Amino acid sequence: MLSILQGRKPGPQRVRGPTPRRTLMAVHRARGTRDFLPEQMHDRRAVVSAIAEVYERHGFEPLDTPAFERIETLQGKGGEESDKLIYKILKRGAGAEQGKCDLALRYDLTVPLARVVAMHPEIRLPFKRYHMGPVWRADRPARGRFREFWQCDVDIVGSTSTLAESEVIAALHRALCAIGFAGAVFRLNDRRLLRALATSLGVADRESELLIVIDKLGKVGVEGVNAELLKRGFSEDTLTGLWAVLDGDDAPLTRMASALAGQEGTEAAVADLQQVCEQARQLGVPADAIRIDPTLARGLDYYTGPIWEIELPGADMGSVGSGGRYDGLIGVFGKKSVPAVGGSLGLERLLVLRAESEGAVTRTAAPVLVTVFDSERAAQSLHAAAVLRQAGIGADVYADARKFSAQMKYANARGYPYVIVIGAREAESETVVLRDMVAGEEQSVSLATVVSLLSRSTVE
Amino acid sequence: MLSILQGRKPGPQRVRGPTPRRTLMAVHRARGTRDFLPEQMHDRRAVVSAIAEVYERHGFEPLDTPAFERIETLQGKGGEESDKLIYKILKRGAGAEQGKCDLALRYDLTVPLARVVAMHPEIRLPFKRYHMGPVWRADRPARGRFREFWQCDVDIVGSTSTLAESEVIAALHRALCAIGFAGAVFRLNDRRLLRALATSLGVADRESELLIVIDKLGKVGVEGVNAELLKRGFSEDTLTGLWAVLDGDDAPLTRMASALAGQEGTEAAVADLQQVCEQARQLGVPADAIRIDPTLARGLDYYTGPIWEIELPGADMGSVGSGGRYDGLIGVFGKKSVPAVGGSLGLERLLVLRAESEGAVTRTAAPVLVTVFDSERAAQSLHAAAVLRQAGIGADVYADARKFSAQMKYANARGYPYVIVIGAREAESETVVLRDMVAGEEQSVSLATVVSLLSRSTVE
Repeated sequence: MLSILQGRKPGPQRVRGPTPRRTLMAVHRARGTRDFLPEQMHDRRAVVSAIAEVYERHGFEPLDTPAFERIETLQGKGGEESDKLIYKILKRGAGAEQGKCDLALRYDLTVPLARVVAMHPEIRLPFKRYHMGPVWRADRPARGRFREFWQCDVDIVGSTSTLAESEVIAALHRALCAIGFAGAVFRLNDRRLLRALATSLGVADRESELLIVIDKLGKVGVEGVNAELLKRGFSEDTLTGLWAVLDGDDAPLTRMASALAGQEGTEAAVADLQQVCEQARQLGVPADAIRIDPTLARGLDYYTGPIWEIELPGADMGSVGSGGRYDGLIGVFGKKSVPAVGGSLGLERLLVLRAESEGAVTRTAAPVLVTVFDSERAAQSLHAAAVLRQAGIGADVYADARKFSAQMKYANARGYPYVIVIGAREAESETVVLRDMVAGEEQSVSLATVVSLLSRSTVE
Repeated sequence: MLSILQGRKPGPQRVRGPTPRRTLMAVHRARGTRDFLPEQMHDRRAVVSAIAEVYERHGFEPLDTPAFERIETLQGKGGEESDKLIYKILKRGAGAEQGKCDLALRYDLTVPLARVVAMHPEIRLPFKRYHMGPVWRADRPARGRFREFWQCDVDIVGSTSTLAESEVIAALHRALCAIGFAGAVFRLNDRRLLRALATSLGVADRESELLIVIDKLGKVGVEGVNAELLKRGFSEDTLTGLWAVLDGDDAPLTRMASALAGQEGTEAAVADLQQVCEQARQLGVPADAIRIDPTLARGLDYYTGPIWEIELPGADMGSVGSGGRYDGLIGVFGKKSVPAVGGSLGLERLLVLRAESEGAVTRTAAPVLVTVFDSERAAQSLHAAAVLRQAGIGADVYADARKFSAQMKYANARGYPYVIVIGAREAESETVVLRDMVAGEEQSVSLATVVSLLSRSTVE
């Protein structure tokens, strides 16, 4: 409602102008955003609460932060690319006329976490938190890419142990199982191995460039990667050396350990990846759900240790989640650096896949529509609704004074499994007609019988 | 996570800059906003889901809309006062330099509803929707007044029947009961009676001014209202006439019906209010939860019929909810007017009151902390956590490699009811030590026993 329900008494001091005139202009949403009508919301809510339940069961605790932050909190934290994607909010008052901005919408949930940790020294480490909510990016909208979308993050702040990676992976894996994606595969690599690779090939100074090209492997294949590397002036020798590490029939971790032996970070990275795999198994993640992949090149400048991306074999969707260790960011607002590991599930993609696989929850919220007629019988209809609701059964009351046929049309269109009708005879005998809309049958029964019938049938 | 988990493959094309340098500046949130740490989030989530559950049980269906709308959708819908409160978002690209804005954060959930109804002609009326989420207003922050706050709205769009008012009131009442405020009182009046009052006093042209003063009755009392009315030039006769209607020992509805008889709208308003009260009772709202109050003057220009405010007797908090019929707004984007009734609960105030009354949920999410030691015993700890989680029991794993004393300190500080310790002896005998942190007792038991003990003790 328009009324201001907080901090001051709503009332005439907050007077609105006269009722706005109808404007016959075309109505639009903001580009790249979506409305979620009830049929989408049911599955969305089911998935969000299933993920939250798993995160909590893994010992992560909920955190929420404001939609907007001071602009200096967000700017410069994710590099130039990220800065361009930030929605900036105009100053109020005098600053507005000069086009000055002091606030901006969060574009991820990690920078706000870093700010929270800096502002709350009382938070005990390790801090295991989850955060699910919308973020905003002024990105070019495209199929499956939106300007407002949800992230479902788990992070462990303050631990240098690989237990943190394993816990995050276990939570993400179990959350995916809970929403129907038990086949998810974690591609696992380590930031330090990528650096060692570039160094061993003698192109340490062009590491970013090299990895940008490798990252296209899935799209353009080996040929494509080679062509682009040559075009960019990498030598044939570099290519040969590259594929000797990235490609082979032996176990990839063994191969990397030997090919990159002696490079800085190799030994630690290999040991950490081994531990992460082993501990994740101990936490219940099946062995085949994690695959060491030397070609995984994400998180170029942001991550500092193990990194992963989550894929669904067979789903042509790219990654549905990701994560890794990033020991640099959380401490950015504070006096000392703070180690951290985090992972995230991409809600929007997962919901698209669920909708396609028909795993989605689409039923209406209330299983019963109680029809209402003239004022005399209305009393009994309303009483029936009250009794059902009191018993925990969702009951919708047709809230307009319409003919029976209009009410039944509404019930059919919205797919209520049951409709209650109270006719003259029922009103007299204190019964109701319970119509089973699926079977097309009806029976005259007492309200108590309806409660007992529907309590059973609506148990999920 | 910073990674972009939607629509395009996350990877090096979204390269971040180098790990940002730590900035030793003071860190702040945006003014008037809040972080919700786990201890606040538990109650917040419990309240939000309890309200949603009640709304659904009353046949309202969930809707969600984007945080921002096109600026022309929001501007001019709530009068000048509202326009000043709108957070405007700077254009991206060239428009940014000129300080141009094309988007704005929603300041309520009603204007987005109107837009949704206009954009989705397939929505079947009556449309009963609920919407719970944050809204943003560039208001002066004060105790209990925030710039980001949640509203919990129910609306019925497309019904001219008083059944709509009754259903909304019943849902709000039941939601308040569900979160511990069974004593809530609905002050009920009608917009048409306020207009009739001004007309009968011969000050129809100064209706808004009159009502602004009457609305201060709760704060300044009869004396204060009279003093201000006189100061504003209203006559002694007007005052006498005013209190003859507003004040008296007889039933207020009867008094208004007779005092305002013959004025336009009086008869319909009185009949509607009677029906709303009667139907709400039939829907299970106790008779003493609704009080006709001729002095309730809210919703001056926005509402068109019955209006109400919800108060908690004894709580010095002002209104915790409100609502009414507003037949003008929903159709503002469309070709024809659409009747509507809506109500809202103010989440922030209700949460403050719950926290004060100790009804709040504060327990940690996971009841067990599983401690972890050297890598040998880690396997058993992780296995124990996996078994508990699989059984639906929340289990936190201490995710850093620390001494036992540090882990117990953490467990104490965060209030886990149970801690699991696996020592050398337990590892050998395939048992665990289950420590009851409240009783200060511990026992060596099998994991199966732990599952059965905790399944019982964590049932809520």
